[in-house]
Amino acid sequence: MSAEFSKGAPASSFAGAAPKAVRIVVDCMGGDHGPVVTLPACRAFLDKHPQAEIVLVGTEAALSAAAGWDRCTRVVATEVVTMDDAVEVALRKKRDSSMRVALQQVKDGASTGVLACVSAGNTGALMAVARYLLKTLDGIDRPAIATVLPNRHDGYTTVLDLGANVDCTPEHLLQFAVMGSALVTAVDGKAEPLVGLLNIGEEAIKGSDTIKRAGELLRAAGEAGQIRFHGNVEGNDIFKGTVDVVVCDGFVGNVLLKTSEGLASMLSDFIKQEFTRGPLAKLAALVALPVLKRFKHRVDPRRYNGAALLGLRGLVFKSHGSADAYAFEMALTRAYEAASHGLVDRVHDKIVPTLKSMPGAPAESAA
Amino acid sequence: MSAEFSKGAPASSFAGAAPKAVRIVVDCMGGDHGPVVTLPACRAFLDKHPQAEIVLVGTEAALSAAAGWDRCTRVVATEVVTMDDAVEVALRKKRDSSMRVALQQVKDGASTGVLACVSAGNTGALMAVARYLLKTLDGIDRPAIATVLPNRHDGYTTVLDLGANVDCTPEHLLQFAVMGSALVTAVDGKAEPLVGLLNIGEEAIKGSDTIKRAGELLRAAGEAGQIRFHGNVEGNDIFKGTVDVVVCDGFVGNVLLKTSEGLASMLSDFIKQEFTRGPLAKLAALVALPVLKRFKHRVDPRRYNGAALLGLRGLVFKSHGSADAYAFEMALTRAYEAASHGLVDRVHDKIVPTLKSMPGAPAESAA
Repeated sequence: MSAEFSKGAPASSFAGAAPKAVRIVVDCMGGDHGPVVTLPACRAFLDKHPQAEIVLVGTEAALSAAAGWDRCTRVVATEVVTMDDAVEVALRKKRDSSMRVALQQVKDGASTGVLACVSAGNTGALMAVARYLLKTLDGIDRPAIATVLPNRHDGYTTVLDLGANVDCTPEHLLQFAVMGSALVTAVDGKAEPLVGLLNIGEEAIKGSDTIKRAGELLRAAGEAGQIRFHGNVEGNDIFKGTVDVVVCDGFVGNVLLKTSEGLASMLSDFIKQEFTRGPLAKLAALVALPVLKRFKHRVDPRRYNGAALLGLRGLVFKSHGSADAYAFEMALTRAYEAASHGLVDRVHDKIVPTLKSMPGAPAESAA
Repeated sequence: MSAEFSKGAPASSFAGAAPKAVRIVVDCMGGDHGPVVTLPACRAFLDKHPQAEIVLVGTEAALSAAAGWDRCTRVVATEVVTMDDAVEVALRKKRDSSMRVALQQVKDGASTGVLACVSAGNTGALMAVARYLLKTLDGIDRPAIATVLPNRHDGYTTVLDLGANVDCTPEHLLQFAVMGSALVTAVDGKAEPLVGLLNIGEEAIKGSDTIKRAGELLRAAGEAGQIRFHGNVEGNDIFKGTVDVVVCDGFVGNVLLKTSEGLASMLSDFIKQEFTRGPLAKLAALVALPVLKRFKHRVDPRRYNGAALLGLRGLVFKSHGSADAYAFEMALTRAYEAASHGLVDRVHDKIVPTLKSMPGAPAESAA
């Protein structure tokens, strides 16, 4: 497996880097647009973050555009995981894909100095290869995908899981709570993020047996000081900003994310349609343009791009496949913040005592 | 139980009504505002529907405002189920509540002539009392709550279940598909509504075991001509209008509904904030007012008010608790359409052959 690296620039080319440098590897081929989007994003990101270093992974032809960039190394990979490739193809066939070579750089962090990977590739493939190469942290049964959604406080709410796990036990939901808290602390600097359990009512008696039992575990973890637990929250609390972290299973998380994306996109198209319906509406649009632009910026989903794959022995961030350069740069920034603040160590340091303090719920007993 | 009716006007006061009259009973006390909202809504509804008749149920004082209304009878109930009352209170204690008396009028439809009930009261209580009094149809294990959400075609998508059932078997999801189809046919006149199964991907291999098995049942029902099955849909398909009916369990449905409400409300407040931020923005708002009004009307949630409680031996519609008179009138209109087109019979006529045609899934075997 390590033979792949012989094709790329040696990692030791970074040997003289400043001690505070934060090195991130980028799968340049992933996403709907590949290097056309990822390379300009990397350039813009490097220009804004003087302590950042980037390892670009992609085909030789694609990477030629980045020749001579400062704080940037190129590693050649001969294959590309497409957005339609089955997980098995990414895992067993395309062993020299840009995605896999990039993740291997994280695994070999001790020698490569790489702290995090960013890819806009196929989510299922990215999760499978990341899990295979990096493995999960002690105490974590399953990795989770966490993203952020904007809220009324002009901040954002972190939601997990978003589709990695369709069936979750109460223990998994507790692990998600701990991982989500560590993410918010690392990326946003909030010392004690508030966690809510997504349910269909605020009362503790609501929901399925799994949710009720998860509520008990989260309450116990809250009382033991492992997390700060608010209690149950409902779907609208995500946008109210009632809590910093909302925990749910991957099925529910995926549905709520796609429902929100679909609704926001419909409303935005309706606004456009109404402001182009005839000459008077177009005149109104002209007058209202600065206001509409401010509104658009405020809810721009590109600002929230970059989902974290949590619970692995290494940092991996997933960009939306359809991301443009601005959105991909935001994903790079989130990865940079998480890497700068030691997210993996934070999750590890939190999860072990949390699970130990729950005699009724050792991770080993989870199905 | 039938003693309650002795307090009200005799149902026979409608004896001379035209044969095509559609009689609806209204729980005037339900919701956040009670008669202040429900009575004006009933009046506006009656004025627009010359064949409608209404039975108002409420306290004597509340109903006095409707004295002398044409096509309207008043039935007194001495108690009111509050929005905070536990299900047990509504079911066992408040036996003379306006909610219960109204539902009893549906049960006694043969003598009262009432075809449907509309209430803005506590959802849990309404479902429990309706189920207790009316019972479920043959072949239906559990009633479901169905509502509509607007879509890009300026039509709407029916979604069920919305919270009545947190754990669903594949058989329940099949029953929801049949009931949802019957609802769309009765209310919108669509002969063969297209049904989608909510999942986290379009491929049949996605989702939990329950969802996969439900997909098989729905596919078989589609092939047998019992429903028109599209296949899996994702959260964003609700607003795309990919299908007429989206089927999911009550936990997922409740989360997606509340998430959508929360997002829409946040975006609408953001628009308001941006258009009132300083004198220039206010001027722009003035110029853009007709456009903003058209947009607001297009996505006005009040137009979609009125969830159907399906699978019961009688029609019950639930209005949002916070509904104003316009929204409550929309719920009355939906109930009127469903009653006019024999929704209960349609569900019954569809569900029995559908379940019989599935040798692998008799309703009796459902957990």
